[in-house]
Amino acid sequence: MIRFNSDYLEGAHPAVLEALIRTNALQSPGYGEDDYCREAADRIRAWCGAPDAAVHFLVGGTQVNRTLIAAALRPHQGAVAAVSGHIAVHESGAIENAGHKVLTVPSGNGKVDAGDVDTLCAAHYDDESTEHMVQPGLVYISNPTEIGTVYTLAELRALRQVCDKWGLPLYLDGARLGCALVSEACDYTVSEMAALCDAFTVGGTKLGALFGEALVIRTTALNRDFRYILKQNGGMLAKGRLLGLQFRALMSDGLYETIARHEVELAMVLRDGLRSRGYAFWVDSPTNQQFPILPEPVRNRLREAFGFECWQKLADGSSVVRFCTSWATSKEQVDALLDAIPPLR
Amino acid sequence: MIRFNSDYLEGAHPAVLEALIRTNALQSPGYGEDDYCREAADRIRAWCGAPDAAVHFLVGGTQVNRTLIAAALRPHQGAVAAVSGHIAVHESGAIENAGHKVLTVPSGNGKVDAGDVDTLCAAHYDDESTEHMVQPGLVYISNPTEIGTVYTLAELRALRQVCDKWGLPLYLDGARLGCALVSEACDYTVSEMAALCDAFTVGGTKLGALFGEALVIRTTALNRDFRYILKQNGGMLAKGRLLGLQFRALMSDGLYETIARHEVELAMVLRDGLRSRGYAFWVDSPTNQQFPILPEPVRNRLREAFGFECWQKLADGSSVVRFCTSWATSKEQVDALLDAIPPLR
Amino acid sequence: MIRFNSDYLEGAHPAVLEALIRTNALQSPGYGEDDYCREAADRIRAWCGAPDAAVHFLVGGTQVNRTLIAAALRPHQGAVAAVSGHIAVHESGAIENAGHKVLTVPSGNGKVDAGDVDTLCAAHYDDESTEHMVQPGLVYISNPTEIGTVYTLAELRALRQVCDKWGLPLYLDGARLGCALVSEACDYTVSEMAALCDAFTVGGTKLGALFGEALVIRTTALNRDFRYILKQNGGMLAKGRLLGLQFRALMSDGLYETIARHEVELAMVLRDGLRSRGYAFWVDSPTNQQFPILPEPVRNRLREAFGFECWQKLADGSSVVRFCTSWATSKEQVDALLDAIPPLR
Amino acid sequence: MIRFNSDYLEGAHPAVLEALIRTNALQSPGYGEDDYCREAADRIRAWCGAPDAAVHFLVGGTQVNRTLIAAALRPHQGAVAAVSGHIAVHESGAIENAGHKVLTVPSGNGKVDAGDVDTLCAAHYDDESTEHMVQPGLVYISNPTEIGTVYTLAELRALRQVCDKWGLPLYLDGARLGCALVSEACDYTVSEMAALCDAFTVGGTKLGALFGEALVIRTTALNRDFRYILKQNGGMLAKGRLLGLQFRALMSDGLYETIARHEVELAMVLRDGLRSRGYAFWVDSPTNQQFPILPEPVRNRLREAFGFECWQKLADGSSVVRFCTSWATSKEQVDALLDAIPPLR
Repeated sequence: MIRFNSDYLEGAHPAVLEALIRTNALQSPGYGEDDYCREAADRIRAWCGAPDAAVHFLVGGTQVNRTLIAAALRPHQGAVAAVSGHIAVHESGAIENAGHKVLTVPSGNGKVDAGDVDTLCAAHYDDESTEHMVQPGLVYISNPTEIGTVYTLAELRALRQVCDKWGLPLYLDGARLGCALVSEACDYTVSEMAALCDAFTVGGTKLGALFGEALVIRTTALNRDFRYILKQNGGMLAKGRLLGLQFRALMSDGLYETIARHEVELAMVLRDGLRSRGYAFWVDSPTNQQFPILPEPVRNRLREAFGFECWQKLADGSSVVRFCTSWATSKEQVDALLDAIPPLR
Repeated sequence: MIRFNSDYLEGAHPAVLEALIRTNALQSPGYGEDDYCREAADRIRAWCGAPDAAVHFLVGGTQVNRTLIAAALRPHQGAVAAVSGHIAVHESGAIENAGHKVLTVPSGNGKVDAGDVDTLCAAHYDDESTEHMVQPGLVYISNPTEIGTVYTLAELRALRQVCDKWGLPLYLDGARLGCALVSEACDYTVSEMAALCDAFTVGGTKLGALFGEALVIRTTALNRDFRYILKQNGGMLAKGRLLGLQFRALMSDGLYETIARHEVELAMVLRDGLRSRGYAFWVDSPTNQQFPILPEPVRNRLREAFGFECWQKLADGSSVVRFCTSWATSKEQVDALLDAIPPLR
Repeated sequence: MIRFNSDYLEGAHPAVLEALIRTNALQSPGYGEDDYCREAADRIRAWCGAPDAAVHFLVGGTQVNRTLIAAALRPHQGAVAAVSGHIAVHESGAIENAGHKVLTVPSGNGKVDAGDVDTLCAAHYDDESTEHMVQPGLVYISNPTEIGTVYTLAELRALRQVCDKWGLPLYLDGARLGCALVSEACDYTVSEMAALCDAFTVGGTKLGALFGEALVIRTTALNRDFRYILKQNGGMLAKGRLLGLQFRALMSDGLYETIARHEVELAMVLRDGLRSRGYAFWVDSPTNQQFPILPEPVRNRLREAFGFECWQKLADGSSVVRFCTSWATSKEQVDALLDAIPPLR
Repeated sequence: MIRFNSDYLEGAHPAVLEALIRTNALQSPGYGEDDYCREAADRIRAWCGAPDAAVHFLVGGTQVNRTLIAAALRPHQGAVAAVSGHIAVHESGAIENAGHKVLTVPSGNGKVDAGDVDTLCAAHYDDESTEHMVQPGLVYISNPTEIGTVYTLAELRALRQVCDKWGLPLYLDGARLGCALVSEACDYTVSEMAALCDAFTVGGTKLGALFGEALVIRTTALNRDFRYILKQNGGMLAKGRLLGLQFRALMSDGLYETIARHEVELAMVLRDGLRSRGYAFWVDSPTNQQFPILPEPVRNRLREAFGFECWQKLADGSSVVRFCTSWATSKEQVDALLDAIPPLR
C-alpha cells in the first residue's frame, strides 16, 4: 500500500532527523530559550528579509493560528477568512473557543479576495448597528490555500492595501509555505511576501520536519507579551530546542526549498500524468496537493493499492480525491500510481 | 558546565530515539489513529490495570491539563488545586483562559489534603450565596507534586472518598509519575493508584521522551467527544504516531520504570550526599527533584561549573535551590556536584 | 415626530408600570427569590402548559441567548441558526465570546428549515474529519423571526423531529413571542409550541414591559445549576422582583396577548394600507414588524415627520424600511403615517 | 417583619420612580443613545469633575465588572483584587469565564494595600518563569469595600502611585459609592477620587435606583470600542433610557448624596446603639452595612421580627451578622430594631 493521503504520513527528512540525533545527549535550556532556537530564528529572519521580526516556534498549526489570533484580537473582534479557510472549517472551533468569530468571505478557489474584505468592512462600519456586530479585526489567509492554490503578488498587495485601509493585520498561514514559494504560480520572493504580512508561519510539519511551525511576527504590537499567550495556549514546548534544531536544519543549505521543490515537482508529474490521461481537476493546484476527479470504478480499483482522501462526492457519481506528495514520496511511487490509473475513455 | 536545572535539558532516551529512527520512513495515518498509538495505548492500559480506559497522547503538560479540565467542567465550575499546584501557578492562566477558576486549598508540602477539599465543598454548599460562587467541579493533584513529594495510598484513598462524597472527578497530573511510583515513599502499585483516579497522565517529557504526556481517562463521561476538545485546544499532533512510538518504547521491557529508577536513585545519592555534608532541605522529596538550602557563598561557587534553579530566597540570605536528575544524568555528574559542595560547617 | 423605529421606544404598558408603582415600598428578597417571581413563574407555567418547567427571568435578549447557550453546550459544540439569526448577526459575537461557533444554515425568510439542519448534521457526522469540525449542539430559532415571519406547526414539528434524530435541544427565542402567537400565520397554541421546545423565551421588552425576558426551560438537564451560569453572565438582577412583577402583570387577565394583539392589529392596518397604495414588501410579515420597499423620494419625505429604520438599499435606488408597532402605538399614529404615504403610481 | 438583609429589598426612591412615570409614554431611541442618557452622563461628568470621561450605563454590578475587565485586559492578564473582593468571591467566576484570573492579595479590612500590589508585581517580574504566570493587568478595588470600609485619600494615592509604577489601570467598583463619599471616613471629594482612578462605577441599585450602575471611564484607551464589548456581554439595555432617566434624577439637586446620607446616618444610629449596648463589631464600618457580633440567643429572638444576614459563625457560638440600611429604611425601623436588642451583659 502506497499512501498519498497527506503530507504528514512519514517522519522527518533525514537531515532533520540527523540534527536531532546528533545533539540528543547535549544539554540546553528549556522553553525555546536555547541557542538552536536562536540560530534558527536568525536564519529565518535572514531568509525572509525581516531582520527585526520576532520568531516563535510552535508544534502545530491549529495551535499557532489560535495563539496568534488570541494575541492579536480584542474580545469584540473577529478574524476574516475564506469560507474554506482552515480556521473556519477544520480547527474544531478553536478560534471561537478563544472567543472570536470567524467572519467568512465567499471563495471558490480558496483565496480571500481583497475586494470582498473591503466590502465586508465597509458594510460593517456602514451599518447603524455597528456595535451589535463583530468587528473585523484581522485578515487570515493561507498560502498555499487549503486546496493548493497560490496567491499572486498582485493579490497579496491588494490585501495589504485593504488591510491598511481598515487598520487590520494580515496574517498568512504558511503550513505548506515552501510549496507556494517554489510553485510555478509564485511571482514573488519570500522577502516580498514577508514584507506584505504582519505575521506569517513557515510550516515544518508538511515540509520535512517531525513537527513544527515557525511563526514570524513583523509587527511589534502583535508580539507584545506573546510568550505568555503562547504558554497559556499550551504552545510552549519544554524541550523547545527540538523545534530550533529542526528549523535550523531546514534553513541550512536551502533544504526547505529543496524539500518543497521535491514535493511540488512530483505533484506536477502526477498532475501532468492525470491530465494526459484525460482527467479533469476540481481546482488547478500548482502545489503538492492535487484534486483530480475520479469516476467510481477507477477510485475503487486504486484503493486496493493506494491511499488517498475522498474530498467530495459529485452529483454524477464521480468524486474529487486528494493526492499529496511529501518529502518522502519517490518518483517510483508516483509512477506506480499513474500506471494504475487508466486513461479516461 | 553540568546542568541540573531541570529534567528536560536533553533529548530522548536512546531506546526512545531509536524507535523514532527505525520507523522514520514508514507511512502511517495522522492524528493519533495509527497502530503505534493503538499499541502504546494497549500497553498503558495493561500497565495500569485499566482495560477499559481511554488513552490519548498529547505533546505537553499545560496542554493536557487545560484540555482535560475544559472537557470535564461546565462553565460555572472550578478546579480545586493546591495553592502551589501547577495549574494554579505556572500555566499562565490557561485554566482561566478556558473559563474556569482554580479554587486553591492551602498546602505546605505540595499535596491537596482531603480534609481541605471537604471543608471547601461544605463551605460552598453551606453558603446562602452558593450560586454566586464558583462551584467545585474537579480535584486536581500532581504526583509527585511540583516540589517532589509523593502521595501515600491513604491520602489518595481519602481524596477518592471526598471526591465521591461531593461528586467530583479526581484528576492526577503525572508529569513525573514514574518518579513517584519508584520512590521509597510510594506504598501502592500503579494499578491501585489508577483505580482511585478518574483520569491521570503518564508523563513522558521528563522521563525519557522527546515530548509527550499520555492521558488515561477511566471515567467514560469525561472521555465523551474528547478528541474534538483535544483538536480545539491545539493538542492533536499531525504526526501523532511520534507520541505512540515513544510511549510504546517507554512501555516496553519496563523502560519507563528503569528510567524513573535511574533518576530517583541519582537524586537519592545527591540527597544523601548533601545530608551527610550537613545541609537542610526545604522539603523532604523522595523523587528526582531535590531542594536543599544553600548559603550564598556555596551557591556562587557552584554556579561556575553547575547549572541549577534558584527556587526561593530565605530571610537569612541563604536560598532554596533545585537540582533535577534526568534519564541522562550520570553518577559521575552527581559525584562531581557533590565534590564541589563543601561540608556545612 | 412619530417614531416607528422599533418596539422599544417607550416605557411600559400602564398596567405593568402600575404594578411597579404599587409595590415600590414593599420589601422582598433579592435575586429573583421573591414571591412575585414565584407567582409570575407559576402563571407562565400554567399559560404554556408546562407545569414542570423551570422559569428564569432575565433583563435582555442577548443576555438570555448567551446564558442559555453557554449552559447547554460543551466547548466543542456550536449553535445552529439561520444565517439571519439574531445570535449570528446582532449580538456582537456574544456566543463566540462564550466559546461557541454559530453554525449557520441558509434562510431566505428568517426561518431555520428542518431539512437544512438534517443536511448539516449528516454532513458533520459523515465527514472523515468529524472531530476537526464544530459539532452541532443545539438548534436556535426565533419566533417570530428577526424579519417578522412565523413558524407553522408543521415546521416546528419537523424541527423537533430532526432535533430528536440528532440529539439536539431546540431553543426558541421569543423576543416577540406574543406577536407570533396572535398572528394570522400561527396555527398552534402556546402549549403546543412549548411542548416542541426544550427551552424558549417569552419576550417582555417588546411587549409592554420596561424590560425582561422570561426563560422557560422544559428539559431538566438544561436547567442544571442554571442560576450559577445566570449569575456568571451578569444576568441575575439584584432587585429581581422587578422582573417578577412585570411578568405577573403581563400574565394577568390576558394582558400579554392583549398587547400582542394591539401591536399586530396596527401592523396589519399598516400593511394593508401600504398594499392598497401599491407598495411591495421585502418579506411577508404577519407580525408587528413590516418591511415595505419605498422609493427614495417617498422615504425622504416621510423622514420629516416619521422615524423608521432603513433596512437595506436595493439596486434600483429604493430601500427596504422597517416600521414597528408597539404597545404604545395608536391607530391615529398609523393613520397619520399612511396619510403621509402617497399611492405608488 | 422588618428586613435589614440588604440594600436592594425595595424599589426606587420616589423621585427616581417619578422620573420613570413622567416620561413613560414618550418615545426615545434605544440602546442608551437617548437624551436622558446624554444628560445623565453630562451631570455625572460635572459631578465628578471629569469633563472628558466616557460614561456608560449598565444594569448590574457583576455585568459592569465583567465588561470593564474584559475590555481592559489582554488574555494573559489578571485582575488584582483583595481576597474578599466581589470579583474574587461573589460573581460566580464571571471574570474567569471572561478568561482572566483574579490575582488576590491578602486583606483583613476589605481594602487592597498598595504595598501588597507592589510586592505582587515585583515578584511577578522578578521570577525567572514570568511568562509562565498570569501578568497583573489591572487593580480592582471597591469603595466602600464589601465589608463597608472606606479608602482614605492617602490609600488611594498610594494605589495610584503603584499602578503608575507598574502600568496598571486602577478600577474602582462603587456599587455603594455614595455611602463612601458621605461617610465620616472619607477625606476627599468625588473629584479627587475620580482623578485617581482610570475607571469607576457610581452605583445606583443600592442607592435609590431600581437598578443601574454608571461606569465612568477616564482613560481613553479603556473606552476604545467599549460599546461592542458592552453589547457582547449582554449589558446593552434596549430601553437604555431607563438608566439615563434614573441617573439624571439621582444627579439632580444632590439626590444621590441625600440618599447616601440617609442610609449612612441611619447606619450610624444603629452602630452607636449597638455599641452603647456593649456589642462588638467584626469590622469598623462607617457606611450603610454594619457587622455586629451577636450571641445565638439574641440572634434567634431577633429573627422573629427582623430580617438580616448571618455573615459568619464564630468559634464561641456567636455570629457576625449584617444589617443594611437603604433609601427606604426609616428611623422608626432602626429604633424598633435597637429596642429589640438587649444590652449585652
